[in-house]
Amino acid sequence: MKAKEFKRVIIENVTPEVNHGDFPAKGVIDEECFVEADIFTDGHLRVASRLYYKHEEEGKWQQTSLKPLSNDRWQGSFFPRKLGNYQFFIEGWVDEFGSWQKDFKKKREAGLDLEEEFRIGANILLRLGKKSSKKDFFQKIVKALEGKTREAEKIALVFSEDLQRNLDLLPLDKSLVTKSGVLRVETARKKALFSTWYELFPRSCTNDSKKHGTFLNVLKEIPRLAKMGFDVLYFPPIHPIGKTKRKGKNNSLTAEAHDPGSPWAIGGKDGAHKAIHKDLGTLEDFKKLIKEAKKHGIEIALDLAFQCSPDHPYIKEHPGWFEWRPDGTIQYAENPPKKYEDIVPFHFTLENKEELFQELLSIVLFWVSQGIKIFRVDNPHTKPFALWEWLIREVKAESNDVLFLSEAFTRPKVRERLAKIGFDQSYTYFTWRTTKFELTEYLKQLTGPLMRHYFRPNFWVNTPDILPEHLQVGIKASFQSRLLLAATLSSNYGMYGPAFELMLSDAIEGKEEYRDSEKYEIKNWSAVERNRLDDFISLVNQIRKDNRALQDTYNLEFFFIPNDFLLAFGKYDRNHKNYLIVVINLDNENVQSGMLEIPLDRLGISEDRPFMVHDLLTNHRYIWQGRRQYIELRPYEVPGHIFKVLPAMHREENFDYYT
Amino acid sequence: MKAKEFKRVIIENVTPEVNHGDFPAKGVIDEECFVEADIFTDGHLRVASRLYYKHEEEGKWQQTSLKPLSNDRWQGSFFPRKLGNYQFFIEGWVDEFGSWQKDFKKKREAGLDLEEEFRIGANILLRLGKKSSKKDFFQKIVKALEGKTREAEKIALVFSEDLQRNLDLLPLDKSLVTKSGVLRVETARKKALFSTWYELFPRSCTNDSKKHGTFLNVLKEIPRLAKMGFDVLYFPPIHPIGKTKRKGKNNSLTAEAHDPGSPWAIGGKDGAHKAIHKDLGTLEDFKKLIKEAKKHGIEIALDLAFQCSPDHPYIKEHPGWFEWRPDGTIQYAENPPKKYEDIVPFHFTLENKEELFQELLSIVLFWVSQGIKIFRVDNPHTKPFALWEWLIREVKAESNDVLFLSEAFTRPKVRERLAKIGFDQSYTYFTWRTTKFELTEYLKQLTGPLMRHYFRPNFWVNTPDILPEHLQVGIKASFQSRLLLAATLSSNYGMYGPAFELMLSDAIEGKEEYRDSEKYEIKNWSAVERNRLDDFISLVNQIRKDNRALQDTYNLEFFFIPNDFLLAFGKYDRNHKNYLIVVINLDNENVQSGMLEIPLDRLGISEDRPFMVHDLLTNHRYIWQGRRQYIELRPYEVPGHIFKVLPAMHREENFDYYT
Repeated sequence: MKAKEFKRVIIENVTPEVNHGDFPAKGVIDEECFVEADIFTDGHLRVASRLYYKHEEEGKWQQTSLKPLSNDRWQGSFFPRKLGNYQFFIEGWVDEFGSWQKDFKKKREAGLDLEEEFRIGANILLRLGKKSSKKDFFQKIVKALEGKTREAEKIALVFSEDLQRNLDLLPLDKSLVTKSGVLRVETARKKALFSTWYELFPRSCTNDSKKHGTFLNVLKEIPRLAKMGFDVLYFPPIHPIGKTKRKGKNNSLTAEAHDPGSPWAIGGKDGAHKAIHKDLGTLEDFKKLIKEAKKHGIEIALDLAFQCSPDHPYIKEHPGWFEWRPDGTIQYAENPPKKYEDIVPFHFTLENKEELFQELLSIVLFWVSQGIKIFRVDNPHTKPFALWEWLIREVKAESNDVLFLSEAFTRPKVRERLAKIGFDQSYTYFTWRTTKFELTEYLKQLTGPLMRHYFRPNFWVNTPDILPEHLQVGIKASFQSRLLLAATLSSNYGMYGPAFELMLSDAIEGKEEYRDSEKYEIKNWSAVERNRLDDFISLVNQIRKDNRALQDTYNLEFFFIPNDFLLAFGKYDRNHKNYLIVVINLDNENVQSGMLEIPLDRLGISEDRPFMVHDLLTNHRYIWQGRRQYIELRPYEVPGHIFKVLPAMHREENFDYYT
Repeated sequence: MKAKEFKRVIIENVTPEVNHGDFPAKGVIDEECFVEADIFTDGHLRVASRLYYKHEEEGKWQQTSLKPLSNDRWQGSFFPRKLGNYQFFIEGWVDEFGSWQKDFKKKREAGLDLEEEFRIGANILLRLGKKSSKKDFFQKIVKALEGKTREAEKIALVFSEDLQRNLDLLPLDKSLVTKSGVLRVETARKKALFSTWYELFPRSCTNDSKKHGTFLNVLKEIPRLAKMGFDVLYFPPIHPIGKTKRKGKNNSLTAEAHDPGSPWAIGGKDGAHKAIHKDLGTLEDFKKLIKEAKKHGIEIALDLAFQCSPDHPYIKEHPGWFEWRPDGTIQYAENPPKKYEDIVPFHFTLENKEELFQELLSIVLFWVSQGIKIFRVDNPHTKPFALWEWLIREVKAESNDVLFLSEAFTRPKVRERLAKIGFDQSYTYFTWRTTKFELTEYLKQLTGPLMRHYFRPNFWVNTPDILPEHLQVGIKASFQSRLLLAATLSSNYGMYGPAFELMLSDAIEGKEEYRDSEKYEIKNWSAVERNRLDDFISLVNQIRKDNRALQDTYNLEFFFIPNDFLLAFGKYDRNHKNYLIVVINLDNENVQSGMLEIPLDRLGISEDRPFMVHDLLTNHRYIWQGRRQYIELRPYEVPGHIFKVLPAMHREENFDYYT
């Protein structure tokens, strides 16, 4: 039985925490990072605790206090001011004098005799004071408590700020202090949590579908995209495309001479993962595009597709990186019985691992050195977890502002593991979640007590691979409502355009795939004349920019409304200064209505005071009073409300809206 | 980058697990212990895994396989056959040949050419076979697959049991195997999970309230208690009671000469924690009682109340174990502003810890040596956690069949921590949970994915300290329904009698306390003439004995019934051979009815087949068909149903009821 075993305070369930601390939780620079723990002791004693934190490169721990929430849960927080890993831990101990104060108060309220209590308090202070550098200060108080001082004066003394300050400065007796394990939070830049993505094929930036678009043409699109409010522009692979087994239009097995092939079949005689498809332009053109886009607030994101066309130079140079069949042919990609003969996957083995991992890292570092700081990773779940864990760490060690989006459309556990080991953002199942029940359950999971610490969702309304069933009906309201859902439920969202803003809905029969997919042909979108969603998209993205409540994903609370087609929720910023109430009609064809229940207490609004809400989509203002409000949404007008709760003229105490 | 980093398989979220493995999970001897984990790898490869387990005193690990459930969750199990700590861990690896088999099957189903596939399979077997002690066996198969053997024969070969057996025997390449951490399960005897408690004050086993009851009188009660189906008989402290500040009738501050005092004010001139109150009899009487009770299937449980009366010998012998006030008086127990001057708590400090802990341990070991194997611990939360963690471990090292019940009516986190650090059973908030919502939420928490591994609830319908509000109404149905709830929701439950079977409901005005509490006076229960619940209690306890479904707490599933006064749930044993459907009327005054929805699929019963249920409370049998059944409960008859689902005459496949 050693002395250290006799620490009276228990610290449990510290959050944020991922896999028992194996991985860092995810934080964002300058966003308050909340640390919580169960902290308690036996009996009726009062506990005290401190949160310590530092950036891993700093030597000195900062400290701050934790405050009790309820049910023995405590919370503290800090602001990570640098990118990279922060470490934190908690110390807890019995607050001896605080425990005395607690009991003293109760006895005083009960009108008991206090003389003996003062003497007990004095004894504690006498003992504690011996550890202080201000022994005189403590001795004076002890003397006053034991002497003939007036009771009111004694009371003032034991609850004085001066005393508390000096108590707080006392060195802790480490043999009585419980220390939690050290956990980590990895801080990313703001864009990790708040980003608005647009995907396009640069080769389709053309006014003639027989002519390959170029980076310089993309440049001309930038002002339109900036005006629509996007801040990440993501390209499918921009590298030379293989000729062998090239796919033709509509994924046909035989390509015509003019077919450009799928950009994901990377590598040919003109180079591969570190080269640019010559018809797109030069590396200089590309760097110019990066620079010009930046001026418009748009970052270019590249696709990392670690796979090869049969013409990729690696195949000859590094046969050991691939799998060979007994007949001497190379093993192409397959998902039996489906074959993808234009794609050859890497074959990761213990033997080739060192060399192959290094080469793949060098690809990323090459593009980082050209100015690319965001990568969308194609099918990361078909490569070893160990690759990503190592590669992302290496890249961030070099350049800690690089972000990785995981395109893992696979089983949940696999997808989540990729997030844990380092991916900053992840594609999700949102694309297929449509009913109120599905959306509610899924969002509760994503924002719940586990996933919120490691998984940053990025909601895509469509992709070049996915034209979901609900968009195939081709009604404007369905595009609008999906956009509203993605843009308000998740602070990261994206669309594949111009297919989305043109509301394309023409699918291959019985599949969730675009007919005449852009993956296999050059499109001249400028020639398409249709109704467009541009203005609506611009409006929604502007609302996201103006409201911090929409720049976080985990600040979500579903509201009750007794209609299965109406999804209602509240979103607030971390300081509760910006509060939005969103209602979306999931029925794209019919008017839906219901009485919305608003948890007014959480908003600091009392039932008997009117307050104003401003619908940011229609610019209408309403004066409401009470918890229950009538909502009616007509899909052919706008299929949703985004109400901003306005600062009340009759402002309540403790309710300080963002002005 | 070391080779060991390149393990392709991930093992996560292994259960059972408590605080990251800091504490063992709780198991029961001979009850199947289920181990689960998320096991997966990248890509489409198939994983294989093995569960290793052993008693900590054994040298050799046993192994068994895990089976996939769904969503990458795997499950294996073992039967702990000894008391004490079991250790377990999981290994996972890529099943190379299994992955080939999976793809092969798909290609075969798609009618693709298989020749090349056989050659690929042969290559894998060639490589794996080199590690085998049966190289010839593998070479023969390889030759057959590469040769002109008929396709059907080749297929038979690659899926043969013989091959699988030899593959399973191959030594694993440890550099490719992922190993989980080692976790623990502490195995207790069956009574830890299934026990039926009765609490009585031995001094009230008398036919004259002026005459102190004795252990020999208790002996006469044993047959009645055995007949009622109890298997644990728990006594409040049986030690000498202090005279100083002794409490009188109804907790009055001044005792009359004949007042016996509270049994929890332990210690006087005749001895203390290791002595027996002389009016109860001798140690020999007590040991005779233990022995005779055992013959009736009843174990005697003692109260461990680590506190002293002001007359306890410790106070003079060990003044350093107590707290002294500045005026020289001893610090009595208090919960300001309440005072308990007949009780002096120990004051645990770093200085007295070693000596005091050892003395407290010696008390437990003394009673263990007299034959006591179950202790109900009074207010464990007012002593250091470190005491219990150490003391329980020490006692179990000496005698591993000793059980501890924690009477921690305190905050949830504190109560749960006590369970984690070693208590076998715990009092709960059940005593105050009355509505359907409260009961449902509370039971979901107790049996949920976290608490089920460390917390074994013991549901008490009343205690000498608690006559809950809902029993004060004094209606028979309220006693019956509370009994049914406790006895069916929890496999451990207890009552304080004879107050309960006599349905006493007389409380102190405005409090949940018995008027004329037995804590402060001797009762002559034999003189009380009232309706009794004995027969109903006997029936319920007999049903518990006959049905394994009621001998486990975590096998609970709530059923839907659209009536807030009807609580409906299913209980099944671990082998799903004994299935009960319980419905309880929470309204003690009115008839309540509703359509119960039974998840027939979980019972293996199809919608179109009739099946019989047998109400074990009324002995009525009903033939039901379909998911929805009408339920009506009249509180003045019986306020509940316990339906046993009978083995169908037309037995379904896969449904093998307990007969």
